[in-house]
Amino acid sequence: MATKGKLYLIPNRLGLHATDKAFTPYQTEVLDVITLFLVENIKPARQLLRAVSAQKNIDNCHFIEMHELKLGSPEMTMVFQALKSGQDVGLISDAGCPGIADPGAFFVALAHEAGMEVLPMVGPSSILLTLMGSGLNGQQFSFHGYLPKETAQRKTALSAITSDIQRNGYTHLFIETPYRAQHMLDDILNTLSPSLKLCLGVDILMPEQFIITRTIQEWKKHSALVHKRQVVFALGK
Amino acid sequence: MATKGKLYLIPNRLGLHATDKAFTPYQTEVLDVITLFLVENIKPARQLLRAVSAQKNIDNCHFIEMHELKLGSPEMTMVFQALKSGQDVGLISDAGCPGIADPGAFFVALAHEAGMEVLPMVGPSSILLTLMGSGLNGQQFSFHGYLPKETAQRKTALSAITSDIQRNGYTHLFIETPYRAQHMLDDILNTLSPSLKLCLGVDILMPEQFIITRTIQEWKKHSALVHKRQVVFALGK
Repeated sequence: MATKGKLYLIPNRLGLHATDKAFTPYQTEVLDVITLFLVENIKPARQLLRAVSAQKNIDNCHFIEMHELKLGSPEMTMVFQALKSGQDVGLISDAGCPGIADPGAFFVALAHEAGMEVLPMVGPSSILLTLMGSGLNGQQFSFHGYLPKETAQRKTALSAITSDIQRNGYTHLFIETPYRAQHMLDDILNTLSPSLKLCLGVDILMPEQFIITRTIQEWKKHSALVHKRQVVFALGK
Repeated sequence: MATKGKLYLIPNRLGLHATDKAFTPYQTEVLDVITLFLVENIKPARQLLRAVSAQKNIDNCHFIEMHELKLGSPEMTMVFQALKSGQDVGLISDAGCPGIADPGAFFVALAHEAGMEVLPMVGPSSILLTLMGSGLNGQQFSFHGYLPKETAQRKTALSAITSDIQRNGYTHLFIETPYRAQHMLDDILNTLSPSLKLCLGVDILMPEQFIITRTIQEWKKHSALVHKRQVVFALGK
């Protein structure tokens, strides 16, 4: 019987940054040979292939968008047949690490249920890079994805974060869409305790990257313009 | 006036695994030129340099162990003078990403206070790789470092984790020292709800790596031998 195929979890770029800062040589090795890809969207996956696997004939590759992978669908059956017959499959989200603040986990869970080998690959995560660069507590931390949009609920979430920082010392990370990032920053500066520390991880790995940690009080004196930028927020003490 | 030096946060190996799976070409570029290093311990930092920056003359490098970097110490003064005069400095912990379940954050915080530029680099994190590979919720998660050693306190910690999984759906990650990993696994299997999912990320990036997610009930039927192995535990649903 043939060896089962493996599911490679393949990080994507965080933007159009230089690939030599983001990917290992192994990423090229793996992308050179895989031809069946589960993707969040086809275009960012093709862009990754062009950037990292120069000689690849992309037109010979098969891309399935993950929203098509419904239980019992022909696409799902085809992917599992490929894996069972020994073909390796790559899973790629639009940016960063699949499954981390990005789609992919639901399929990885199915792969575990089917006893497949899952191989996550080293690559860029704006969350991890912001936490490393923040100087905040990296021994205990929580990531919340997006905080609630609605003002009262967002205030409640920010107060819960503040009490946890003061009681347990965890660092709390969250993200916001680029066009609401400035509004989130203003909300934080207007509502949180002046002595808390806020790290902004902005446009990580891009030429415009900055990672700066200051107290809320200091940020109020020198705020940042983050409108339409990719921002990871980290709060701690 | 000279441009200030930058503080590079440089990931180290998770063990003696192949470097082409863990590091970017940029890691070699940076290690080729830096000569002043803040390290958790000198030996693992020298091993990284030998593995990733082949032509480097390591005997020309200066290593300062981070425990020597006390406020007001001659070592601390020297490092900040180097940064202020334009010299780049590398910070390296014994394994994985500095500052994440590893020392380094205290110095990064001082660098921010002094207005230095901090540049975290892409590299291996067993926590992030386990979460990616787990198929558990990566939209919201918490990392707790080590759980309490004492039985009653550990049980309390595991119950708090269970209620948070059931209430909020967060994934909860923690680590354990290799010689207590089996004991921790047995404790989890004996105390937690059979329907919870447990992912074991074992010896990540090493030839013996495995990442497997099963319900507690299934783990009880096919448990794993993790004594003296590097294990990241992830609990979720």
